[in-house]
Amino acid sequence: MGGEVARYRHEALAVILQVRDYSFGPALAVLAWRRRRPPFAGDWALPSGPVGPSEAIGASVRRLLAAKVDLGEIAHLEQLRTLSAPDRDPSQRTIATAYLGLVPATSRPDLPDHAEWLPIDRLPTMAFDHAYVVDEGVARMRAKLSYTNIAFALAPEEFTLAELRDIYAGALDQDVAVTNLQRILLRRGQLAPTEGYAEPGEHGGRPARLYRFTTRELEITDPFAVLRPSR
Amino acid sequence: MGGEVARYRHEALAVILQVRDYSFGPALAVLAWRRRRPPFAGDWALPSGPVGPSEAIGASVRRLLAAKVDLGEIAHLEQLRTLSAPDRDPSQRTIATAYLGLVPATSRPDLPDHAEWLPIDRLPTMAFDHAYVVDEGVARMRAKLSYTNIAFALAPEEFTLAELRDIYAGALDQDVAVTNLQRILLRRGQLAPTEGYAEPGEHGGRPARLYRFTTRELEITDPFAVLRPSR
Repeated sequence: MGGEVARYRHEALAVILQVRDYSFGPALAVLAWRRRRPPFAGDWALPSGPVGPSEAIGASVRRLLAAKVDLGEIAHLEQLRTLSAPDRDPSQRTIATAYLGLVPATSRPDLPDHAEWLPIDRLPTMAFDHAYVVDEGVARMRAKLSYTNIAFALAPEEFTLAELRDIYAGALDQDVAVTNLQRILLRRGQLAPTEGYAEPGEHGGRPARLYRFTTRELEITDPFAVLRPSR
Repeated sequence: MGGEVARYRHEALAVILQVRDYSFGPALAVLAWRRRRPPFAGDWALPSGPVGPSEAIGASVRRLLAAKVDLGEIAHLEQLRTLSAPDRDPSQRTIATAYLGLVPATSRPDLPDHAEWLPIDRLPTMAFDHAYVVDEGVARMRAKLSYTNIAFALAPEEFTLAELRDIYAGALDQDVAVTNLQRILLRRGQLAPTEGYAEPGEHGGRPARLYRFTTRELEITDPFAVLRPSR
């Protein structure tokens, strides 16, 4: 009882994800860069920075991201998890709160030097517990793909069903059938056709209808309608 | 560059939920007690305490809960959210990480003085941002009822379908049809009949079959099986 209460350095951390086209197909990538200073100099790390004395952590994340990428490219940002193992930073005790951000597949934000998109299924060694934080961010995003409309933040404003299938396939790292995807998203009221058509591809064929998400803000699909008595 | 990095007091916080029987029916309640010291002396608050110098926050939560209730009664515990508004504690800057804990409906843990279960739909004024934290905990629990087997942590080891219906109805604050609930949970492989039957109630009638959850650890329902190509 009494005595000094311990105080800690507190850091904001960001897992920024985007589905990108690779030679091996569409795949999820995370924004990272090489650390120039110890600890873990030369390793890849997530964007991070200290929380200021008069800032909430969400404001710190926005400030530190704004210094790296155009914030307008981040279509969704939410708090992910706080990391607090006493030895996670060998230089001093640091508690870190990680945020998850999603960037539409067609965005090409300017990146600062030393920053790159790394495909998440072949991550290099990462500093601190950042590889674990990436796993947590990917798991959260995948869970929310099932019970929310969060895919709006991975997709551009308008897209063909084939393009949306590629985004889901990359985000989930699994095959996705266009017809099942269309049926589920239409039934949930998440997807709507537009008046537009895509430019025909180099192989010609019928032009494909463009679709859009009905809402570009996070909404939870009502999962319990089905439990209600039918009377 | 250089200069002092700010350091903050860091607190662990717990939202412990249980479905309880009230005169108005089964309803969700949260564990809280009255603060004896300022700030907010006399107001209701969630269990909380400072994070120790060599502790991760999860360890702090378990330590502070163990001083209040039998930890064995908490069937599920997970990190919920970190609260960091600079003015959330008027006495000093405090960042708090909240955990969500679930107690089975039949558990009756001994409570210390000043502690009570408060029904969440008629909460009194709460200290700090604790009313908001309760809302976040309830929203997380309800979302997870839809895409995980988390209901195991609200239910006893064995239960009749009518008892399980009451637990879902209290947790969701909505009517729940036993037949729909049974169909969905059986289809997901979450529910299994036991060999046992409940004692007949005071009105007699056929004894009701007892059921159990197939797993009492958190599992995510595979939501994307449906998206896979059928070949």
